[in-house]
Amino acid sequence: MENVKVAIWGFGAMGSGMARMLLHKKGVDIVGVCDMHPERVGKSIFEVLGVARGARKDVLIKADIDEVLTDKCCDVCLCATDSFTKNAFPRLKLALEKKVNVISTAEEMSYPQAQNPDLAEELNKIAKENGVTILGTGINPGLIMDLLVVCLTGCMTDVKHIEAKRVNSLSPFGPAVMEEQGVGMKVDDFMAGVESGHLAGHVGFSESVNMIADALGWKVEKFEQQMAPIVTTVDRKSPYGFAAAGDVAGVNMTGQGYVDGEVKIDMIHPQQIEPEMEGTHTGDYITIKGTPEVNMAIKPEVDGGLGTIAMVVNMIPHVINARPGLKTMIDLPVPRAIMGDFRDMIER
Amino acid sequence: MENVKVAIWGFGAMGSGMARMLLHKKGVDIVGVCDMHPERVGKSIFEVLGVARGARKDVLIKADIDEVLTDKCCDVCLCATDSFTKNAFPRLKLALEKKVNVISTAEEMSYPQAQNPDLAEELNKIAKENGVTILGTGINPGLIMDLLVVCLTGCMTDVKHIEAKRVNSLSPFGPAVMEEQGVGMKVDDFMAGVESGHLAGHVGFSESVNMIADALGWKVEKFEQQMAPIVTTVDRKSPYGFAAAGDVAGVNMTGQGYVDGEVKIDMIHPQQIEPEMEGTHTGDYITIKGTPEVNMAIKPEVDGGLGTIAMVVNMIPHVINARPGLKTMIDLPVPRAIMGDFRDMIER
Repeated sequence: MENVKVAIWGFGAMGSGMARMLLHKKGVDIVGVCDMHPERVGKSIFEVLGVARGARKDVLIKADIDEVLTDKCCDVCLCATDSFTKNAFPRLKLALEKKVNVISTAEEMSYPQAQNPDLAEELNKIAKENGVTILGTGINPGLIMDLLVVCLTGCMTDVKHIEAKRVNSLSPFGPAVMEEQGVGMKVDDFMAGVESGHLAGHVGFSESVNMIADALGWKVEKFEQQMAPIVTTVDRKSPYGFAAAGDVAGVNMTGQGYVDGEVKIDMIHPQQIEPEMEGTHTGDYITIKGTPEVNMAIKPEVDGGLGTIAMVVNMIPHVINARPGLKTMIDLPVPRAIMGDFRDMIER
Repeated sequence: MENVKVAIWGFGAMGSGMARMLLHKKGVDIVGVCDMHPERVGKSIFEVLGVARGARKDVLIKADIDEVLTDKCCDVCLCATDSFTKNAFPRLKLALEKKVNVISTAEEMSYPQAQNPDLAEELNKIAKENGVTILGTGINPGLIMDLLVVCLTGCMTDVKHIEAKRVNSLSPFGPAVMEEQGVGMKVDDFMAGVESGHLAGHVGFSESVNMIADALGWKVEKFEQQMAPIVTTVDRKSPYGFAAAGDVAGVNMTGQGYVDGEVKIDMIHPQQIEPEMEGTHTGDYITIKGTPEVNMAIKPEVDGGLGTIAMVVNMIPHVINARPGLKTMIDLPVPRAIMGDFRDMIER
């Protein structure tokens, strides 16, 4: 059997991380990469990654997707270009119409039914017409605050209330994340940014809440979310961020899913640089009231960057094996690390 | 759409618990129950369960399976009769040949490929010939020490070592479990029971280890397990068990899966009555070395009885939806609590 063939669209931190991971795996080849960053276009991925090419065929980074994706040129295209379904849509459509399976890192694509049901239906239709599958995934949304919650309810006869809490550190992230999350801002500027919708915060609560509810058969009547500044009382410094005492070290996002007139799903996600400086310990916590109760903790929190890279790469065989259409994490078998040959995981 | 129709074979603690759970759910009916216990045969399940029948059709417990299962009489039969694949096999075969899907609670059936590959292949063949699906599941094996481990590796780029540890209390269990696990025995008698193979201990390590390894693409070269007595220094009493100081309060089971010449999967499962009396706190722990590392704890441990009942009932729609053949938990979508109508979860 031939190696599994993968194309990567977007060669930033996520896309290049996936490439690095794939180069360590058996039975899988990177056959094309598309990225528009002027510093990368035209270069070999091995040069950009600083990895020895060995006996592998070279792969040059192309700015034009039509030079990368041709009909059935590969088994799957990993799209690491966007956060929002609407922005990602034209790219996802293009890839599907080349009759290749697609995995998107766009947070909203982890459950596009939540905020873009029309686009979700459209992607489902395009994928089916072309005999391929499309999935959105990542660490969160994708696993920690949704799929893992769903999985843990599997051992319950009755669920009354779900709380998913992810307390993580933004210290490993770069300047773009610092800006999106408001790190270093004055509190007034932060509040103005929330008001104007300029500050993104975490993208994915609506997706996680709807994924959980649909999996369990609950109907979400109302969804709300809030963004509050995490104000530091000491100066905090990370490689790419700085928050002076009195300023914003991060954002505390909270969200609620209402079912049968009450909040049945609570999402809590404080993200900040250097949380330990004020005694905050990172971790992922799932507390499910019902029968029997489940109280789970992962400490420290699962690394977000590596986690997203792994989730996307590890879902490749499931996406290739799936029936055509739009799938979400609750439709497919559980994710798993791939320590053997990718080809052994493909159903013939 | 008609309600989902369920038959139950074996109406002990597990089977009757599943019935009780199903009676609280929407869009699903119990259409038949088989059990040979003289105290139950001929009685209404509502009488045995102490649940008001309401507008439901009565269901009388039959000793003869042929009076319960006829061709395509129901969508799924829940078999809660055995722990071992070999013992369960004739019953599972009979049910599959009536063209009904099957979910078995037999611990070995959670991954029959591990110890009975021939029977697993035979069940796969029979299921396919009859256009139905068979699955084995439960809380453990089935979720805590295997599927949940697999799921958590999904966010890892590389896995070096897995430790799954379940520290639970046997206090809620009845006389049969006390005997199987050696509770109250003299240490010498316990050791003799281990030697002769008379003491069962936990059934499922081989299944969990092989499920994890196959999911990740590891080859298990060797599997070993050990049973050691947990000797109490104080008198311990539970509703159905008693261990005097110096005697056996439970069993500490350990198991190892060897991959590439080293132990890559460690299973640790101490079970005892009244663990708190000597400072042992119950919980489920998964520690995965690799990139990134994952350290998970569920405290207290997920209740084993309720957990098994829930897993079996919650997997009903996935089993009905699956393609024909033998499936395991790593082949199907993640389990989930069913809080809505069962019919909404069936794919047409």
